[in-house]
Amino acid sequence: MSEIRWGPIKQKWVIIAAERSLRPDDFITREEPIREPKSCPFDYGNEGITPPEIFAIRTDGSRANSPGWKVRVVSNKFPALRIEGEMKREGVGLYDYMSGIGAHEVVIETPEHKKRIHDMTVDEIKLVFYAWQERMKDLAKDNRFKYIQIFKNHGAQAGASLAHSHSQIIATPIIPSTVTNELIPCKEHFSKKERCLFCDVLKDEILRGDRIVLLTDFFVVFCPYDSFFPFEMWILPREHNHDFTTLNSDGLYQLSITLKDVLTKLLNLLNDPPLNIVLHTSPIQRLSPSHPDYWRTLVQDYHWHIELIPRLTRIAGFEWGTGYYINPTFPEESARLLRDV
Amino acid sequence: MSEIRWGPIKQKWVIIAAERSLRPDDFITREEPIREPKSCPFDYGNEGITPPEIFAIRTDGSRANSPGWKVRVVSNKFPALRIEGEMKREGVGLYDYMSGIGAHEVVIETPEHKKRIHDMTVDEIKLVFYAWQERMKDLAKDNRFKYIQIFKNHGAQAGASLAHSHSQIIATPIIPSTVTNELIPCKEHFSKKERCLFCDVLKDEILRGDRIVLLTDFFVVFCPYDSFFPFEMWILPREHNHDFTTLNSDGLYQLSITLKDVLTKLLNLLNDPPLNIVLHTSPIQRLSPSHPDYWRTLVQDYHWHIELIPRLTRIAGFEWGTGYYINPTFPEESARLLRDV
Repeated sequence: MSEIRWGPIKQKWVIIAAERSLRPDDFITREEPIREPKSCPFDYGNEGITPPEIFAIRTDGSRANSPGWKVRVVSNKFPALRIEGEMKREGVGLYDYMSGIGAHEVVIETPEHKKRIHDMTVDEIKLVFYAWQERMKDLAKDNRFKYIQIFKNHGAQAGASLAHSHSQIIATPIIPSTVTNELIPCKEHFSKKERCLFCDVLKDEILRGDRIVLLTDFFVVFCPYDSFFPFEMWILPREHNHDFTTLNSDGLYQLSITLKDVLTKLLNLLNDPPLNIVLHTSPIQRLSPSHPDYWRTLVQDYHWHIELIPRLTRIAGFEWGTGYYINPTFPEESARLLRDV
Repeated sequence: MSEIRWGPIKQKWVIIAAERSLRPDDFITREEPIREPKSCPFDYGNEGITPPEIFAIRTDGSRANSPGWKVRVVSNKFPALRIEGEMKREGVGLYDYMSGIGAHEVVIETPEHKKRIHDMTVDEIKLVFYAWQERMKDLAKDNRFKYIQIFKNHGAQAGASLAHSHSQIIATPIIPSTVTNELIPCKEHFSKKERCLFCDVLKDEILRGDRIVLLTDFFVVFCPYDSFFPFEMWILPREHNHDFTTLNSDGLYQLSITLKDVLTKLLNLLNDPPLNIVLHTSPIQRLSPSHPDYWRTLVQDYHWHIELIPRLTRIAGFEWGTGYYINPTFPEESARLLRDV
């Protein structure tokens, strides 16, 4: 029997369709792999093809925009939003307009063209997370930005247009609706109970156990009760923390171990599926604790996490019409299969 | 320069990314077409392979579940929701559970295996719309259902798993969030101004003209200011009407002319792109006008419409993280290209 489920964080109904009950082998066929350019702009020696680097990790004393880097961050050559220009907001009849101000950067995660993130060592993955943090801290200084979204698209069906392993950073002058939709129930929960909603969910999931994929001393990985997608997983720090940029070096190392572990599980179970990796963290906080409005902007009731979304099903007419998803695999079954890999 | 836009109906920001400014030829390559089963369950003679028919249009006196039909409606063999069973709602710790009660039907739009909807005559398309209406009226009698979602997936990338032209009907025991999200601003607008929000948008669009694709005496087709997708189009009746099932025979005929016209434009401009066709209409209204709570459930401030979504771009990490879309084509440019086909 199918179930219609609802969770307190996403606050959206999802249909878990038992009749369809897909198994790992049943999922959609892949289209052809990403077409590779003749010369990859992310390879050593091609630094001149990309926009100039904004940030790089180099330990060999090499010069900017030359080989020798381990992780390299550049502006997106075809940015969705641009950092230059005046921030305008105005009404246009019934509509609202804002100039396309923001930042759009690319994190080249490795110089090795064929190395996927799950092929990297834990130390290499840690450098990627470190680069994310450094760029977030720097972009947060720009007063026009309210949120910084970091994500990684792996595989053509997940939206990647280059095969060379990379992630993207987009800073926006608005707080995205998905973030607001999570912040509101978190704030409500906290104001009633003085507890973090995510912490309560975590505690409950660890107690039940049947949706847990991986549990370390520092991180929990589980398939949410109301997963929109088959094999969807969330990685959360066990200790409450709203802001990803405050995670220290040990934390980054532990997170890297955890990510490598779950990606290896996915790779083995589902034959390297197309995948989105999406960071959820608190919006940029501008005010110092001594400011009288500090409490208004405080989002310490949030809990940063990473969502892993294997792209195995299609978004079709039902989803566009309703905003609800049909997930053909029970999260408990996804978790069991992933645990047992 | 990119623009960040917001419209009063969807109330979500969208990034129109000028730097990417894709042209019809630039869009993503298609994967291989849908794999055809050896014997298509939707062809004449195979009526026994599908669940028994719920509704059919037959003019030759042929028997149910045998050839001779023009449009045939059957239960989905792998339903997301089932009509049988008890409607249970209960809390499960922090979560909410509802039994998977609903209806999931398939409208086989033609017996001709290779005929796409844009190959059909206007009269044939009208029969499909008529079947939609008849099934909606019948399903509305079931008190457990609150909304009936009708949609059509055309092409593998749009989620179709069978190539034979068909649409789907899902009746749900909840009002979907996308529908609620449109109903709320409509109700607010109406309560302030005693006018329909959609009617105001329509009037403004017709006046401006640059986002209009097609304008007949009865219907308007336009690319919304805040289109999430390239070449997204909305078809609206020019005369205010909240409920698709009340459209009369002439209206259905005019709608069929309009749909055929815009689908032919899409076909020619974009080489038969994968496409979702999604009906938006008011939730089921249960109370008679004499009931004291009638006004509470009245949704006459809504305006039914059909959304056409060509599936040319990928939903990637940014969209999952933010709930916002990056549209690489200005709606004014989409409309101009479609007008000029």
